[in-house]
Amino acid sequence: MSDIQGRSQDEDDDLLFADEDAPDPSSATSGPIAAPWKLLIVDDDPEVHAITRVVLNDVTFDGRRLQFLSAHSGGEARAILNDHPDIAAVLLDVVMETEDAGLRLVHHIREGLGNRRVRIILRTGQPGQAPERQVIVSYDINDYKAKSELTAQKLFTTTVAALRSYQHIDAIERNRQGLEAIVDAAGTLFEQRCMDRFAVGVVERVAALLPRAAGAFLCAVPDGRFREAVVLCGTGVFAEATGRPVGAVLPDAACADIAAALARGRSLHRDDHSVALFQTQSPGPGALFIAGHGGLPEVERRLVEIFCSRMSVGFDNVSLYEQLRLAQIATVHALGKLAEYKDEVTGEHVRRIGRWATAIARELQAQGSVGGDADDRFCELIGLASMLHDVGKVAIPDQILRKPGKLDPEEIIQMREHAAIGGRILRDASGPVGGRSYLSMGAEIAESHHEKFDGTGYPHGLVGDTIPLSGRIVAVADVYDALLHRRPYKDAWELAAVVDLIRAESGRHFDPRVVDAFVAVLERGGPEA
Amino acid sequence: MSDIQGRSQDEDDDLLFADEDAPDPSSATSGPIAAPWKLLIVDDDPEVHAITRVVLNDVTFDGRRLQFLSAHSGGEARAILNDHPDIAAVLLDVVMETEDAGLRLVHHIREGLGNRRVRIILRTGQPGQAPERQVIVSYDINDYKAKSELTAQKLFTTTVAALRSYQHIDAIERNRQGLEAIVDAAGTLFEQRCMDRFAVGVVERVAALLPRAAGAFLCAVPDGRFREAVVLCGTGVFAEATGRPVGAVLPDAACADIAAALARGRSLHRDDHSVALFQTQSPGPGALFIAGHGGLPEVERRLVEIFCSRMSVGFDNVSLYEQLRLAQIATVHALGKLAEYKDEVTGEHVRRIGRWATAIARELQAQGSVGGDADDRFCELIGLASMLHDVGKVAIPDQILRKPGKLDPEEIIQMREHAAIGGRILRDASGPVGGRSYLSMGAEIAESHHEKFDGTGYPHGLVGDTIPLSGRIVAVADVYDALLHRRPYKDAWELAAVVDLIRAESGRHFDPRVVDAFVAVLERGGPEA
Repeated sequence: MSDIQGRSQDEDDDLLFADEDAPDPSSATSGPIAAPWKLLIVDDDPEVHAITRVVLNDVTFDGRRLQFLSAHSGGEARAILNDHPDIAAVLLDVVMETEDAGLRLVHHIREGLGNRRVRIILRTGQPGQAPERQVIVSYDINDYKAKSELTAQKLFTTTVAALRSYQHIDAIERNRQGLEAIVDAAGTLFEQRCMDRFAVGVVERVAALLPRAAGAFLCAVPDGRFREAVVLCGTGVFAEATGRPVGAVLPDAACADIAAALARGRSLHRDDHSVALFQTQSPGPGALFIAGHGGLPEVERRLVEIFCSRMSVGFDNVSLYEQLRLAQIATVHALGKLAEYKDEVTGEHVRRIGRWATAIARELQAQGSVGGDADDRFCELIGLASMLHDVGKVAIPDQILRKPGKLDPEEIIQMREHAAIGGRILRDASGPVGGRSYLSMGAEIAESHHEKFDGTGYPHGLVGDTIPLSGRIVAVADVYDALLHRRPYKDAWELAAVVDLIRAESGRHFDPRVVDAFVAVLERGGPEA
Repeated sequence: MSDIQGRSQDEDDDLLFADEDAPDPSSATSGPIAAPWKLLIVDDDPEVHAITRVVLNDVTFDGRRLQFLSAHSGGEARAILNDHPDIAAVLLDVVMETEDAGLRLVHHIREGLGNRRVRIILRTGQPGQAPERQVIVSYDINDYKAKSELTAQKLFTTTVAALRSYQHIDAIERNRQGLEAIVDAAGTLFEQRCMDRFAVGVVERVAALLPRAAGAFLCAVPDGRFREAVVLCGTGVFAEATGRPVGAVLPDAACADIAAALARGRSLHRDDHSVALFQTQSPGPGALFIAGHGGLPEVERRLVEIFCSRMSVGFDNVSLYEQLRLAQIATVHALGKLAEYKDEVTGEHVRRIGRWATAIARELQAQGSVGGDADDRFCELIGLASMLHDVGKVAIPDQILRKPGKLDPEEIIQMREHAAIGGRILRDASGPVGGRSYLSMGAEIAESHHEKFDGTGYPHGLVGDTIPLSGRIVAVADVYDALLHRRPYKDAWELAAVVDLIRAESGRHFDPRVVDAFVAVLERGGPEA
């Protein structure tokens, strides 16, 4: 091994006492931050391994020592590289089991393993086998040394330069991957409309972003009252903590860190845990707690900041959506109820029609008996749309609406107009919305919910499938609910009698497929509340 | 300059005829893809410059030649580095205007300029000034060469290794920056609720993502009818194209590329333009056209893909929001109108009240005359809330509502109940929504819009600021609109007479600050449509 020449004057004397089989420096370090740089020596000459270890044993770069891995052939090196994707540099011989075993390994590392990070220093004893000018251009290596020129100083220099490059590339690459994970999270999570599921998605993404962390949770802090802070959802060691008070999950010092971060309005990082904040417009999760990460490097701290800031927008969007949906349901309910104000029908009738119509539609979708007519959008809209079935009643004179007894033929004609009027009111309203909305479906339902399957209904005497499906569904739901409950002009019926009537009217008043779906829903206990 | 030793045997002969002042190779290349690698030589010895150029003149790496830049001092090098942030490598002397001018330059490049990409090869004639072991550890350099050891082959090797590292780092770094730009775009754009502004934001972000491109636009293709494709919004060379047919903006071949990309459902890239697609659930922009980019490298193609996929989610979100808002307005309008169905008031009355109430609220906010009472949220809600002011009329008997003449005292008492009833109906409706919503504000308005500032109104005879601001605003808007238009029981008044009455009632029926705001809105032509 004369080709690794004597060591330079200014090296530490204690190197002379170094064991050739140096202990794994990682055992002497305190955490992943101080983990050693992995250096792989690939050479078929055992002496090269020994001398390389001696020469580089005291190398420290950025506070981290070296951990040596040894392979004596290209094949052995492949196995080690496979097990250690975090090797920083390879000192690589060319001629081993074959004339070009080293060059083949370069190709395998870059193309086969797709590892573009590890720095490869080729060092060859037979430059004739691998001419420098040709090899440096053709192979993705980072330095080329003939063993004959490689002094201890040169080996030191090329190793430090390699570690520096690796560190730099590894940092940008990890940053890039983190950003990619955030971009990916933004893509899939931002389709989420439900707050609970969004929150679960967010902690799962944190876990993916920081795989070394032991766990993370989101906590909601009502109006700065930290004592009432509760875990919204957690992963890892906090997987079971959902719904528990933060004080019962964390030691006091960690709780104090969350409170401090919230008070300062800034993230806070400790040796083994971090608190990051969400800045939402709407009330949302206050803080993200990450535990057991063993110290977050600056790059990852920044990723967590970016992540929380992007997710804050997501929380605001989901919250806005939920708020809009709630207001929408309440408004449609008020609209449906309003029209029946004088009918002495409570808001509960309207609400029950909405639930029954939705349940029947989903059942028809599941059974497939009406083909594509009951698609997802249909099932989504019919709950709100069906609440509006009787809005036309607003135009019916009080004395007809509130008449306790039977209506005379003239009054029946007037009463029946509510279907067409309701259709008109809702069609006018749906105009500016455009497309298929619960208002346009509401118009369809208002107009057709008194049609009968056998053609004997009103206002148009439509038959069978020419009656809109939504109208056929609401016909069943409306009759069921009206008979089951007391009205000014009638008492409440027994459930069995109501069901008998609906079954008897299957194919006459009602579409048999809708009746079947209705019975199926009824038999499993009715629609979900 | 004997320390740069003779050139190796296998160099091209034509190098011997190379001009020391080699022409800028970029002039011989065809586009930015083949732009040369910029190599900066920093040395106070002119001969070093000359010989370096001779030795490296024929270097080609990844199909790109070298462009040499020369500086003869640290100071000169700083200026050049400032002007050329894309220098790939620096061959750097140590001792120049000062003993450590080169080392100071290293510090300046990394810390001052924050340039961590450029590869720095230190080459020194006086290793005593800059001991190798110390310098390689302390300074962020990528290789260290004593001039005495630097053969032409070694110079070639270290240069190629530097270019390779630079290329790799530059690629990840650009990818990282692109992802950062996308993350940033997702953060700010996803707060956007308006489709037009979202679309403008998206093309602006594309321009930022691909600064070399000459322009970009989004186009909407209605239901695959490509002939009707229209530019939604454009930047750069397409800044003026918004609203024009795509066929009028692009040559036929480029149009065909958009059609082909849409038909295949995949992006399409040409030498100078690209077509990327959005995959939205809702009808959205079909395609993104990017022009004059001179060829997109793989990394940027991928960034564009990721960008479009993330923005597709954004389009869906904005579209959903717009859809919800439209349906909400239509529903509230229908609700407000429904209650007045028998009053023979058209939907226009309700709509005008909404517009006037909003305009007065914004004016009060601008004037600051009611302090924080008219905040943003207040101004946002009052348009919808005020439409609901008369929902309580649904409970009033037909013969009172439709009575053409004056009401008798008993009827007046019944009629006045609509305020309290409306408050009750809307308060019930607002319950499940929680917080401040247009339903809770609607309840407040329904109940208080007949109160008078001097305490003579109903139902509670409230005085001054104890009447909710929303009720004080709707009181003015409602009287104004009712007098100005015909009702079953009265003719339409002249505008001047209406305004005179409202002014006369300032401080009696109406809050003077609200009257002032109303007059201000009226004087600039009324509320916006």
